[in-house]
Amino acid sequence: MCFTPLKNDRLIKALLRQPTDTTPVWIMRQAGRYLPEYREIRKQAGSFLDLCKNRELACEVTLQPLRRFELDAAILFSDILTIPDAMGLGLYFSEGEGPKFERPLRTQADIEKIGVPDPTESLRYVTDAVTLIRQELDGKVPLIGFSGSPWTLSTYMVEGGSSKDYRHIKGLMYDQPAALHKLLDTLANSVSAYLNAQIEAGAQAVMIFDTWGGVLSPECYARFSLDYMQQIVSSLKRNYEGQTIPVTLFTKGGAQWIEDTAATGCDAIGLDWTINIADARKRVGDRVALQGNMDPCVLYAAPDKIIDEVKSIMTGFGNRPGHVFNLGHGIHPAVNPEHLGIVVDTVHRVGREIRNSQ
Amino acid sequence: MCFTPLKNDRLIKALLRQPTDTTPVWIMRQAGRYLPEYREIRKQAGSFLDLCKNRELACEVTLQPLRRFELDAAILFSDILTIPDAMGLGLYFSEGEGPKFERPLRTQADIEKIGVPDPTESLRYVTDAVTLIRQELDGKVPLIGFSGSPWTLSTYMVEGGSSKDYRHIKGLMYDQPAALHKLLDTLANSVSAYLNAQIEAGAQAVMIFDTWGGVLSPECYARFSLDYMQQIVSSLKRNYEGQTIPVTLFTKGGAQWIEDTAATGCDAIGLDWTINIADARKRVGDRVALQGNMDPCVLYAAPDKIIDEVKSIMTGFGNRPGHVFNLGHGIHPAVNPEHLGIVVDTVHRVGREIRNSQ
Repeated sequence: MCFTPLKNDRLIKALLRQPTDTTPVWIMRQAGRYLPEYREIRKQAGSFLDLCKNRELACEVTLQPLRRFELDAAILFSDILTIPDAMGLGLYFSEGEGPKFERPLRTQADIEKIGVPDPTESLRYVTDAVTLIRQELDGKVPLIGFSGSPWTLSTYMVEGGSSKDYRHIKGLMYDQPAALHKLLDTLANSVSAYLNAQIEAGAQAVMIFDTWGGVLSPECYARFSLDYMQQIVSSLKRNYEGQTIPVTLFTKGGAQWIEDTAATGCDAIGLDWTINIADARKRVGDRVALQGNMDPCVLYAAPDKIIDEVKSIMTGFGNRPGHVFNLGHGIHPAVNPEHLGIVVDTVHRVGREIRNSQ
Repeated sequence: MCFTPLKNDRLIKALLRQPTDTTPVWIMRQAGRYLPEYREIRKQAGSFLDLCKNRELACEVTLQPLRRFELDAAILFSDILTIPDAMGLGLYFSEGEGPKFERPLRTQADIEKIGVPDPTESLRYVTDAVTLIRQELDGKVPLIGFSGSPWTLSTYMVEGGSSKDYRHIKGLMYDQPAALHKLLDTLANSVSAYLNAQIEAGAQAVMIFDTWGGVLSPECYARFSLDYMQQIVSSLKRNYEGQTIPVTLFTKGGAQWIEDTAATGCDAIGLDWTINIADARKRVGDRVALQGNMDPCVLYAAPDKIIDEVKSIMTGFGNRPGHVFNLGHGIHPAVNPEHLGIVVDTVHRVGREIRNSQ
């Protein structure tokens, strides 16, 4: 496909650890409920899933935050659970309880029935949205595609929704590891095909969200989550039509294991706020870029405090390439949108100051 | 007070890093819903809080797991939120939603009204239960007393219950740190007085549960949680009537910070399952004992797998003093009690094998 060349390539360069004029910034869930214009579209769309599956509306909400803030990237508006939905598990959202599946997987027989969905068929609504958004962006900023990690997807698929105790998935993990490995392998193949389809449709960077990797022991994280993310990293089209496509891995609660995450061959690691970014930098050296890592709750504070916290993270990272500013998790729905504007402007201003300070 | 001398002192010795004949084991929430005999008493008692406040019934449920399993300690049956309840916040439990407060703290004025409760008055039901349990134990195993950490108590007090996003408490932390420090200081004084009253009433070891320290950034953990636990550690009666009273600190999600936790002067650190115990041992050396750290979900697995996991943790720790076997968090209500019996017996058997292997 032929798209307008990229005007603002700070994100791509920073993810590839190349120098930039200032630090790029985007925010997890930047298209979301904290924006009144999002809530308006959400009402029009019907359910959350209807919104994800409507190409025009998904495009519209993806672009909304870019009209308010000088963000350096757009991220596809979608859900991490599109793959299990395409596998036939019947995704739905119950108000206040989060995502659920009508047909969770509980037995080895359930798992053996599951196949790799063809992303050009049952996930076509996603790749169509990617292409439309990329066209509408018109080269303004890069578009990030994403998927859930195999482990994270499997937790929802086996539990049937969000979980407090991970009883069923961990029961499977400890008792029938071969069955879980089979599921994770199918999911790794599915995520690889899905992300490659997003890249072919126009995604210029991709990110894998391992929301629940942090509930595992170190050994289980390595075997049941990280190994499968590595398998995906190795299967992705890292160069597409002359462009390098950076890959970011984000395990919430995974700060203890960033050396191992860096060793997968990914380009960047997303950090939550439970790690000091200067320490993270020391631990992984220049092998990967780092994305993060302000506590989303800082946005409830007054502007002066927000500015202080942004500065503290940026000076912690220091004057070298390879930092993408972000929160350590998604922005909360109750946040005042103006506070996000303060973050974005501060990142760009301080990023320039840091680069000019030598 | 005069109590029967302790017959099984493995726990106390291990917490003080002294040699023992085998590894001691107790289990967080060992008195709890996974036991049918507990559910029976709970029905008789009325609410959960009624059970905590009834000395005889609290004693009965504390002793129940010791009748089934060769556990090396009893732990007082109580709740971590007794202190805020004694401060007048009105603790109650709503089915399926966990603890709530009728009168949460939201403003600096709310915080300034809060005083240190006299543990011999409004918390007398706890110290009375401690003395009764100690008498009923008749020296069989030591009795552990406990409290929530100041940070953890403050999260419930400010949020009004459990929280997903810690919006109010972190808003206070980032925006009005002086008000939060005032609250935490009052709580540290309250916890110190409360734990000292438990020690005087008969508790032979004490533990501080920092259930929510892991939701903080490293800097905030140090300033808003660990500093106040250190203040408590320094204020406790570590020697009482000729006995050393070991102090254990447990921050769920705090594996990254165990060096700092060890530096508080505590005797032992509780570990959740997100850290390899051999690595933890290397990081803290012989400064503290370690308690933990099996994933509670292992108890959903088959007996052989449970035995393997117990062995793996014990051989990871190795043949030296200072390990107390436990889960990395409380036992789940849906677990088969027989599986806990397997854990306890395996710990004792493998602990002897490890000691005889040299």
